[in-house]
Amino acid sequence: MPMRKIRVHVENLRARPGIYHVTPERWSAACARHRAQGRRIEASFGWDGETLEDALKDAEIVIGLRSRLGRLAERAPRLKWLHATLAGVDRLFPLDWLPPGAVLTNNHGAHGVKAEQYMHMAYTMLNTRMAEIAVNQHARRWRQVFSPSIIGKTALVVGLGDLGQAAVRAAKKLGLRVVGVSRSGKRVPGVDTAHKGAALDRLLPAADYVVMAVPLTPDTRNLLNRARLDLLKPAAGVINIARAQVLDYDALAGKLGRGELTGAVVDVVDPEPLPPESPLWETPNLIITPHISCDDGEHYVDISLDLWFANFARFLEGKPLRNRVDPRRGY
Amino acid sequence: MPMRKIRVHVENLRARPGIYHVTPERWSAACARHRAQGRRIEASFGWDGETLEDALKDAEIVIGLRSRLGRLAERAPRLKWLHATLAGVDRLFPLDWLPPGAVLTNNHGAHGVKAEQYMHMAYTMLNTRMAEIAVNQHARRWRQVFSPSIIGKTALVVGLGDLGQAAVRAAKKLGLRVVGVSRSGKRVPGVDTAHKGAALDRLLPAADYVVMAVPLTPDTRNLLNRARLDLLKPAAGVINIARAQVLDYDALAGKLGRGELTGAVVDVVDPEPLPPESPLWETPNLIITPHISCDDGEHYVDISLDLWFANFARFLEGKPLRNRVDPRRGY
Repeated sequence: MPMRKIRVHVENLRARPGIYHVTPERWSAACARHRAQGRRIEASFGWDGETLEDALKDAEIVIGLRSRLGRLAERAPRLKWLHATLAGVDRLFPLDWLPPGAVLTNNHGAHGVKAEQYMHMAYTMLNTRMAEIAVNQHARRWRQVFSPSIIGKTALVVGLGDLGQAAVRAAKKLGLRVVGVSRSGKRVPGVDTAHKGAALDRLLPAADYVVMAVPLTPDTRNLLNRARLDLLKPAAGVINIARAQVLDYDALAGKLGRGELTGAVVDVVDPEPLPPESPLWETPNLIITPHISCDDGEHYVDISLDLWFANFARFLEGKPLRNRVDPRRGY
Repeated sequence: MPMRKIRVHVENLRARPGIYHVTPERWSAACARHRAQGRRIEASFGWDGETLEDALKDAEIVIGLRSRLGRLAERAPRLKWLHATLAGVDRLFPLDWLPPGAVLTNNHGAHGVKAEQYMHMAYTMLNTRMAEIAVNQHARRWRQVFSPSIIGKTALVVGLGDLGQAAVRAAKKLGLRVVGVSRSGKRVPGVDTAHKGAALDRLLPAADYVVMAVPLTPDTRNLLNRARLDLLKPAAGVINIARAQVLDYDALAGKLGRGELTGAVVDVVDPEPLPPESPLWETPNLIITPHISCDDGEHYVDISLDLWFANFARFLEGKPLRNRVDPRRGY
C-alpha cells in the first residue's frame, strides 16, 4: 500500500533575486538528494501569491513564507507547518496570526558558512583600513596606510547563533580573542569568555571589534545605541550582519564622521534598498555591502532545502521540528 | 675579562616611513629583549648616509642596507656582515659589489604574519566581488552582488617562501584547495600538491586564484606574462604580494577591462609611488593597496630585530648565518 503523500506548497516572489527562488528544478534536485522523503511529497509551486489561495485549501506544509497571513485557520484548514526560507523572521512578528495547531520554522543553519567568510573579510578590511585605502585609490593617491597585526585583538560578538558562531570561528582563525554575548550567556565553541546581555556595557570599552549578530526582537532593537557606541574606544570597528534596527546608524555615522571610530562594515541598512540620497553612502570609513554577507549566491536554495528535508524527515517520524520559531523569545 | 664588543652600524633613511626606522629607542628595547647578545654590541646610528663613511671604517656589521655600495673592501675593511631590513633584495643584485669575506642577509621571516592576514582579506574580497560593491557604494547604488562560497576553490600559490606559505595558510583556513609552485617543487605545510615552475602553464587553467609570492629574479621577471594570464579562466582572480615586475600589468589591466578576469588585488605596482596619471588606478575590479600587505605597522622593527638578534647569536657562536642571500639563486 503506497503511503499517503503530504501536500507541500512552495511559494516564491518574482521580485526576489533568483538565488532565492525555490524553482521546480531545484526542488527536484533536492528530492533526488533526499529520495525517501521526496517520494512522500506532492508539491505545488506558486509565484507572487497568484495560486496561493487555492493551494492553501489542501496544503499541509507551506514553504517560502515572507509575510504575515490572516485568517489562516479558515483559509488553510489542513496547515501544520509553515517554513520561512530566511533566518530573521522579525517581520512575521507578532505571531498572533499563526493558527494554534501550526508550527513556524526558520532557515537557521543556512547562513553560517558564508557568514564566516564575510567575517574574515570584515575583520581584515577594518584592520587594514581598506575604506581609507579605497578612497585613496579612487582619488589616484598613493599613501601608505600601515596597520598592526590583528592577532590578539578582541572581537566582541553580540549574539551567538548561526551568524554569531560564524563570527567567532573567523575571529579565532585570525588569532583574535573572542568575547561572546548572548541571551543565555552560554559558551559556544571558540569564545574565550561568554556573558549575558547585561554585561554588554562593561565589555564594550575593551572591544577592538563589535560584531552585531543578534536576531531583531524587542530586546535587541537599538541595542547598540548612541550611549553604547560612546563606550567604544576610537580604535574600535563595528560590524553589523544582523538587522539595521539593532544599531543606531545616525550615531554610528556621526562617530565615524568625527573620527571617533576607526571604521564600520555593515551588510544591513534601513531601508533596503538604501536610497541614493542617504548620507550613509558617503560616511567616512563606512563600508556598506548590499545584504549579501550570509547567503550563498550559488547554492542558497540547495542548502536551505537540505536543511528543510532533514526537518521533514523528523516531521514524517512525528518528532518535534528543529528551528521552531518561539513566539515569546521572538526568533 | 670583558668580551670584545662588536661594532654594529645601523643605517636609516629619513624618507622611509617611520615604521621602518631602527631608532636608538627600538634598538635599546631589542637589546633588553636579547640581553646576552646586546651586551656584546657597540652600536652607532646614521641617517641618510650622513655618517656612513666614518662608520664603515670600523663597522663589522651594517644593518639597514638599501642599495648597492661600491669599493667596500677599501671603505669597510672590517666588514663581515651586511643585513638588509627587507625581504626582497632584488635591487641589490648583482652582488658583484659584495666583498668576498662579507655575508649579506635579508629579513626573511618578518612578513608572514601580516601577509597571512592580508591574504585572508584578498581571497575574500575577490570572492565577494568587493571592488564592484565598492564602486556601487561610491555611485550610491544598491545592487545585490551575490557570491558563492569560497570553500573548495583552488588557490595556485606561486612561490612558497615566507609570503607564499602565508598565502597557503590563509587559503587552508578558508577551506581552499592549495596548489603550490616553487623552484624546488617541495611540499610545504598546507599545500595539497606542490610542483616545480615548469608545471605552471599546466596548472593555471584550473586556478580560481593565482597568488604571486616569488622573489624577483631573472627567472621570475614577467613570470605571469600575457600568455600565462590568458590561460586563466574568466572567473579567476589574481593577487600579487611579490614585486610588480613578476606580472604583466598591462596585460592584466586589459583582461580586467574586458571582463576576462573576475578581479585582482595587487599590493605592488611599478613605479611606486604609483603616479596619479597611471591608468591602473581606475582599472575595473582592480584593488590596489599601497605596498602595505606584509609589514606590521606597529612592530615591524621589533620583529625584524628579534630575527636579527637570533642570527647575531649564531654569529657570536661562529655558526653559519640564516637568511643568507644566495648570489646565484638571486634571493
